Amino acid sequence: MTVLDELAAGLPADALITDSASTDAYRFDEASFCAAGAPLAVVRPTETEQVQHVLRVASAHRVPVVPQGARSGLSGAANAVDRGIVLSLTRMDRILEIDPVDQVAVVEPGVLNAVLSRAVLEQGMYYPPDPSSWELSTIGGNLATNAGGLCCVKYGVTADFVRGLEVVTASGELLRTGRRTAKGVAGYDLTKLIVGSEGTLGVITKATLGLKPAPEAALTMAAAFASAADALSAVTRLMAAGLQPSLCEFLDAVTVRAIQDYRDMGLPTGAGALLLTQSDRGPRAAEDVEAMGAICTALGALDVAVASDATESEMLMQARRIVHFAVEKLGSTLIDDVAVPRARLVELLDGITAIAEEHDVVVSCPGHVGDGNMHPTVIFDRGDPAAVERAQKAFDAIMQLGLALGGTITGEHGVGVLKREWLETELGPLSLDLHRKIKEAFDPLGILNPGKVLASG
Amino acid sequence: MTVLDELAAGLPADALITDSASTDAYRFDEASFCAAGAPLAVVRPTETEQVQHVLRVASAHRVPVVPQGARSGLSGAANAVDRGIVLSLTRMDRILEIDPVDQVAVVEPGVLNAVLSRAVLEQGMYYPPDPSSWELSTIGGNLATNAGGLCCVKYGVTADFVRGLEVVTASGELLRTGRRTAKGVAGYDLTKLIVGSEGTLGVITKATLGLKPAPEAALTMAAAFASAADALSAVTRLMAAGLQPSLCEFLDAVTVRAIQDYRDMGLPTGAGALLLTQSDRGPRAAEDVEAMGAICTALGALDVAVASDATESEMLMQARRIVHFAVEKLGSTLIDDVAVPRARLVELLDGITAIAEEHDVVVSCPGHVGDGNMHPTVIFDRGDPAAVERAQKAFDAIMQLGLALGGTITGEHGVGVLKREWLETELGPLSLDLHRKIKEAFDPLGILNPGKVLASG
Repeated sequence: MTVLDELAAGLPADALITDSASTDAYRFDEASFCAAGAPLAVVRPTETEQVQHVLRVASAHRVPVVPQGARSGLSGAANAVDRGIVLSLTRMDRILEIDPVDQVAVVEPGVLNAVLSRAVLEQGMYYPPDPSSWELSTIGGNLATNAGGLCCVKYGVTADFVRGLEVVTASGELLRTGRRTAKGVAGYDLTKLIVGSEGTLGVITKATLGLKPAPEAALTMAAAFASAADALSAVTRLMAAGLQPSLCEFLDAVTVRAIQDYRDMGLPTGAGALLLTQSDRGPRAAEDVEAMGAICTALGALDVAVASDATESEMLMQARRIVHFAVEKLGSTLIDDVAVPRARLVELLDGITAIAEEHDVVVSCPGHVGDGNMHPTVIFDRGDPAAVERAQKAFDAIMQLGLALGGTITGEHGVGVLKREWLETELGPLSLDLHRKIKEAFDPLGILNPGKVLASG
Repeated sequence: MTVLDELAAGLPADALITDSASTDAYRFDEASFCAAGAPLAVVRPTETEQVQHVLRVASAHRVPVVPQGARSGLSGAANAVDRGIVLSLTRMDRILEIDPVDQVAVVEPGVLNAVLSRAVLEQGMYYPPDPSSWELSTIGGNLATNAGGLCCVKYGVTADFVRGLEVVTASGELLRTGRRTAKGVAGYDLTKLIVGSEGTLGVITKATLGLKPAPEAALTMAAAFASAADALSAVTRLMAAGLQPSLCEFLDAVTVRAIQDYRDMGLPTGAGALLLTQSDRGPRAAEDVEAMGAICTALGALDVAVASDATESEMLMQARRIVHFAVEKLGSTLIDDVAVPRARLVELLDGITAIAEEHDVVVSCPGHVGDGNMHPTVIFDRGDPAAVERAQKAFDAIMQLGLALGGTITGEHGVGVLKREWLETELGPLSLDLHRKIKEAFDPLGILNPGKVLASG
């Protein structure tokens, strides 16, 4: 039997798509400059057994399998591979359980982050990881990339909320990792090894996620600065002061201008940077945002606004919410994701400005600065080959700068295809060798998302 | 050259101990019923280069190396191996850096948990992991076992506060994992793979630990119940109510009696269980502990005390602080460490009572019940072989019960020698096979703490 015949033999008819007109829609995620192959088939399972069937057939025929969620990723990790199977998990989208006593949710990988977040909130609980894509990205994709978000500065990232996984291995076996309990140290932490492995070690078919009690409504502080350096100094000061922002976002001059051009947000003339912070510490929130505002004022902010209720808080957040749309108006975008120690943020931003000048590109620089995580976004004209080349050179230079400042090439977007060469630089040969051996332990035939994270061969 | 000659060639004289009178003191940790071998030598390095030297020599001669901290562990993971090298890291005890902006501490493995905790507190910060052994256990040991503690119910375990490691591999190379930044997803999470691996994958020589701002002083609620089931129901109710205890400890009837016999704590007559909770939510703490107390009252508590200040809070905690001493008065102890879903705690305790009766042993049962983590402690007479056998049978039955209730054999103490057969039961063959392959990837010669966690061969 052919691969397709064997696949069909264990799947409902509507779970297997083979005509290229339809499979083409599954080739790319949201990354720029990442090649994608033409898949042999797209499989859309609804049950774990179907996933096991796909992996068994794939192993028998040594056919690559690319696990895929909502394709909202920014590194090409979900891009199709030539003659491979795209395994789209979006139809496995059940919330199996929400338990307020154990404070866990048990979910399938295709559940949208927003659907889960709202479902647990209805029961007074909170699933913190909130990537900007939360309305459209799946929990499976969030797990595969160890997604971050805006709340990480206080609550941590996806991995911090994963207790256990059900994973289909490369050979189609069912692996259970971790546990349901709040604590547990039996054996190596395979759960966190698989989280963030971008589909290269196994296919997650079920996850037990930890929840927290819902926080109280947050209050917002917004400060406009003439100088980005002053805004970033405010970040290091407020962290050193022990304030605990539940959000700490920065917009640089290019981003502020793009926002103002997109929609007048009434920002003061001469604003070269915007800092947005929140506190959700209930009765302490008001004094927290006041204290944050006072730090900004002391550092010469042009304007400081401190919300006194949820409505004002939401209004102050508007500028942040339209960043994506405003920046996309400027041209094609190549979004980076470096993270550096907080104290090096000013150097990072100065360096990015220098890189933009050197390579004659425009770089917009919004960032989750509470985590030292910037998203320098190179804006370019896709129709101009010289501009494309300049954009790519600037992108590389920014990663090199991030590493030189003691940081990482990726704070939350992952490696995928986009950064696999840079990963080798960050890890070094010894760590890379261990990565390859771990990959080999889980996937000896190399069929799981080959060429992602680690270069093939 | 002999192994000892080669070791000596790269070490200061005072770092190498070979006379058995001296090395004997390094053979055992605090576990009961765990065999220990007679080591060839004890090495007490002060620098990472010395650790590398030891591993290079050990690799060349295929000599086992047992990394060791304060030997306060409870699973035999630090026990010496016959003709092996004990690598005691207690002299590598420098705090290299405390950074309030990045909220990290960089430390060597021999730093005592208490020393680090106090040092960061002096700078307004908080290193939450607080195993009961915190005054004498080292950070390296805490990392190796992924230690928990009393604050885990709110703040998490050791792994949740580790950002990056410097690790000497089996071959003596220097591996750097993770990062200093708050976020980072470059490659597989080798950091968390090594944390909790009990010295079987590498020797941690430096750690970058995440800190939090110091919490406000906690208030305590103490409730005495006639029935343990009611006390444990109070736990599930207060968690489901979204209260966020920063401590949630339980003492069963045997433990309460042992405490009263040790020192009169003025507990009400007929007290069959004691529940202690805290809140550290600043202005919300008073209403939190009142709400916790109200839940206990509604469940028929004999006595509920709610502290209104730090002094009263500390007084209410006294009973918990003397548990260890009070229980040790009863006889030799074999301490278990099962964790179950919170909703199964009553079944766990009922089952333990039945096991104690069946095997004719006394079991004291204190627990971090907010995490579902119990420490059933079998009390026995070490001089009576029949009693020893009964104790071991009861111990095994408790682990079996924990697994049957959807729990784990170890919430925070680790596997070591004590539970390696039980680990195989918990993991199953597929996970165990992956564990062995990962071990092989890091330690192809099998020299790192052989026979710990995974049975040899």
